[in-house]
Amino acid sequence: MADSRYTLDELAALTGSVCEGAGQVAIHAVAPLETAGPDEISFLANRRYRAQLADTRAAAVILPREESAQGARFAVLRADNPYLVFARIAWLLNPPPAPTAGVDETAVVAPGARVDASASVAAQAVIEADAWIGPGCSIGPGSVIGTGVSLGAGCQIGANASVLAGSRLGERVEVLPGAVIGSAGFGFADAGDHWESVPQLGRVLIGDDVSIGANTTVDRGSQGDTRIGDGCKIDNLVQIAHNVQIGEHTVVAANAGISGSTRIGRYCRIAGGVGFVGHLEIADGATFTGMSMITGNIHDAGVYSSGVPLMPTREWRRSAVRFRQLDDMARRLEKLERLMETTKDRDGR
Amino acid sequence: MADSRYTLDELAALTGSVCEGAGQVAIHAVAPLETAGPDEISFLANRRYRAQLADTRAAAVILPREESAQGARFAVLRADNPYLVFARIAWLLNPPPAPTAGVDETAVVAPGARVDASASVAAQAVIEADAWIGPGCSIGPGSVIGTGVSLGAGCQIGANASVLAGSRLGERVEVLPGAVIGSAGFGFADAGDHWESVPQLGRVLIGDDVSIGANTTVDRGSQGDTRIGDGCKIDNLVQIAHNVQIGEHTVVAANAGISGSTRIGRYCRIAGGVGFVGHLEIADGATFTGMSMITGNIHDAGVYSSGVPLMPTREWRRSAVRFRQLDDMARRLEKLERLMETTKDRDGR
Amino acid sequence: MADSRYTLDELAALTGSVCEGAGQVAIHAVAPLETAGPDEISFLANRRYRAQLADTRAAAVILPREESAQGARFAVLRADNPYLVFARIAWLLNPPPAPTAGVDETAVVAPGARVDASASVAAQAVIEADAWIGPGCSIGPGSVIGTGVSLGAGCQIGANASVLAGSRLGERVEVLPGAVIGSAGFGFADAGDHWESVPQLGRVLIGDDVSIGANTTVDRGSQGDTRIGDGCKIDNLVQIAHNVQIGEHTVVAANAGISGSTRIGRYCRIAGGVGFVGHLEIADGATFTGMSMITGNIHDAGVYSSGVPLMPTREWRRSAVRFRQLDDMARRLEKLERLMETTKDRDGR
Repeated sequence: MADSRYTLDELAALTGSVCEGAGQVAIHAVAPLETAGPDEISFLANRRYRAQLADTRAAAVILPREESAQGARFAVLRADNPYLVFARIAWLLNPPPAPTAGVDETAVVAPGARVDASASVAAQAVIEADAWIGPGCSIGPGSVIGTGVSLGAGCQIGANASVLAGSRLGERVEVLPGAVIGSAGFGFADAGDHWESVPQLGRVLIGDDVSIGANTTVDRGSQGDTRIGDGCKIDNLVQIAHNVQIGEHTVVAANAGISGSTRIGRYCRIAGGVGFVGHLEIADGATFTGMSMITGNIHDAGVYSSGVPLMPTREWRRSAVRFRQLDDMARRLEKLERLMETTKDRDGR
Repeated sequence: MADSRYTLDELAALTGSVCEGAGQVAIHAVAPLETAGPDEISFLANRRYRAQLADTRAAAVILPREESAQGARFAVLRADNPYLVFARIAWLLNPPPAPTAGVDETAVVAPGARVDASASVAAQAVIEADAWIGPGCSIGPGSVIGTGVSLGAGCQIGANASVLAGSRLGERVEVLPGAVIGSAGFGFADAGDHWESVPQLGRVLIGDDVSIGANTTVDRGSQGDTRIGDGCKIDNLVQIAHNVQIGEHTVVAANAGISGSTRIGRYCRIAGGVGFVGHLEIADGATFTGMSMITGNIHDAGVYSSGVPLMPTREWRRSAVRFRQLDDMARRLEKLERLMETTKDRDGR
Repeated sequence: MADSRYTLDELAALTGSVCEGAGQVAIHAVAPLETAGPDEISFLANRRYRAQLADTRAAAVILPREESAQGARFAVLRADNPYLVFARIAWLLNPPPAPTAGVDETAVVAPGARVDASASVAAQAVIEADAWIGPGCSIGPGSVIGTGVSLGAGCQIGANASVLAGSRLGERVEVLPGAVIGSAGFGFADAGDHWESVPQLGRVLIGDDVSIGANTTVDRGSQGDTRIGDGCKIDNLVQIAHNVQIGEHTVVAANAGISGSTRIGRYCRIAGGVGFVGHLEIADGATFTGMSMITGNIHDAGVYSSGVPLMPTREWRRSAVRFRQLDDMARRLEKLERLMETTKDRDGR
């Protein structure tokens, strides 16, 4: 799958790592330790896979400073951050194909839409009125870019994705297939015996270098806008409701949901399946483990969790029943403590 | 973003609210309290934002009866239900664009499909055989309306949505982008060493004034039909399995999942991430808070919850370990109580 | 909806079941017990619906060996596995329509893509370069088959689905509408003040007879491949991350999420809303109930659960508060036990 090749010395120079061993060897590709061959480079992803170092046939392995390579048959690239060096080398060896500039003859570009001459629009795509597609953008097959949407330079829109309602994306934003950006938020007023929809008039504003996962949904603001800051990485099947704001460089893993008007800080880490109720404020740098339920503001960076651990169902049922009795148990415990105290007092202990 | 303008007196008359102050002022748009300018109207959405009343530059604010406007620089519209009045005013000031009647030349309408002359079919849409598209419908770009589907007057189908398999939608149903209605339910028979699929033969029947969120999925019935009643509002990324029935005016927030054959009542409120197992009966008017897990029938209206609260992970781990021991703790507590009882008896207390 | 008809004797012979009663009756369709008429066959799906046997107008009912049909007005098909026999009869009576071979004139097939002459490609579909579409495949309207993708014989790709990046599907794989297969995995390296994407170079490899649900997402491997074994059934809105491996005949219900590199065994049963963290090993035959959170390896087949049961919110709040105090409660309980022990010792009991 490699399109390019470099010597190990070249890769070290290009990534600021230090080569130990045969710097002249030509590297054709990256590969996992287990399957790498003699013209491939690998890295140690996780210390639990360390035993694989002994058997790898890789030409070179990217290792952290502290990892011994005594007796290794492979050359070593030393790096403070092996995974980052690996990522950069993987891009060097697998440069993304440059999209072919131009609009496919089956795509539809509405009058008044502007598509930069260097952009690529694939088959069956639709670009609606007053949309602006910046230089070097790549618009996937079957995708829809709605009225008034603006895409900065180098955006990549996946197959069958929909970017709508005047959404504004910065540069190098990646929208994976099937994602929906700018659909109407979930806003209904209680009219007693039925719900009436509230017009959703805002936009989605996305910064630079953001990634939006496959089949993820980001709703437009009701009033005001929904905002996703520079460098955020959002995984698949995530729900981001109207007027949510997400600070720069926050990551959100799959199946998470963020309810309306919640503001997430910068550099947060939100694991899979996490849910936030609406109108919260979440501090910069907060981390939430998988499936956490967040119902209040978070004032400090730190790591937070909720949920209960997995158990065999038979045992779980017993704990689950007792959970219902917890308040009663706590009161009975307090009562026993008081009784015991009385006993001690009376006995002069 | 306003397309229309009204005086405050006109808005009061059209919405049954009472104007206090300058009724002749022309209102061009709605806006949040924070950003509203002197030709805009706002409302108090949530009492926690009340402090913003002092600083708003809005021409007028919609307030509940009991909220003082002493000394306010803005005119007031008094309403029993400010949010509803706001919604109606927002629609008056932002009338939805009338879709341009007609079928885009890149859309495909199969022989035998009928599209009302007043309906709009956007670029790259597909209308399959025997589908019926009612008056005033708007069919989004890249969407697919399958064989035998019927859409009542005024339905709006979003970009890249798919409505399939003979689904019948009432009037004014909104299907947001990427939603899938009428796909095959998850039905497999255990054949010992493999699973065999069970034909999914039913339809999806949707009432009037229903909203289906972006990338939400509603499966066709296996036998019999999946039904969603009038006025239901379903958010994004919701799963509604085969043969589910949802009563009128129930709302379901994002990431919720309803398993096969469960029957949800009318006027229920189901928060984000809630999950129902199959074959349940849920009473009218039941409310479930976020991420609740429902495994049994619910006989009464009321508010229900499950899950455990968020904690710093270090503390959470300690609680989580103890959860596993809960039944043991409960038994030991009972034993202590018995011992204490014995002690008391013996000591004659 | 029936396209075919058989006598009851024929159905018995074709499905290996035993007919008791009028074998010559012509059966036109399957239907639920409640609504079945005198030329329809039904089955007892769930013992809780047993009372419906008394009132059904069905011509015949498929019953398990042990279920009495004393005095029944219907004929009986006896089967060890009534649901399986029902499924097979339902297919006999509702044979899936054979797709019309050929490529719709509005579909786009790139040069270098090969579409078997017996395959069907619907309106507005896109088949990119070097894709291979096997015999009898059916490619839905608006779907996208990406560069280098290979579909074995008899695959069915739903409306607006996207199968990308060299994914290889076996035979008779069903991809429901809106599903995305082969999108980039969620791989980012921490570069201190921002995240850098890691190229996602692997594929998705899917076996034979797999079903992938509507709007489900399956990411391509980062290095190495994501694999789904023969006979797996995946429901709607499921996230399967890069390098996940799922063994043969495992079923995964809606809204579940499986994080990167986790390996699920064969014949597992994963209920709705279940979440797995990454890099786990899950034994063959493990079952997880709805909304379980799996954070460690599972070494044995068995049934596992997590979560807490639903309660009225008012009561739930009390339990939830106590959950936070659980470790403290446990320590206080231990202390009381020690005190009690001391008291007993001292009193010579």
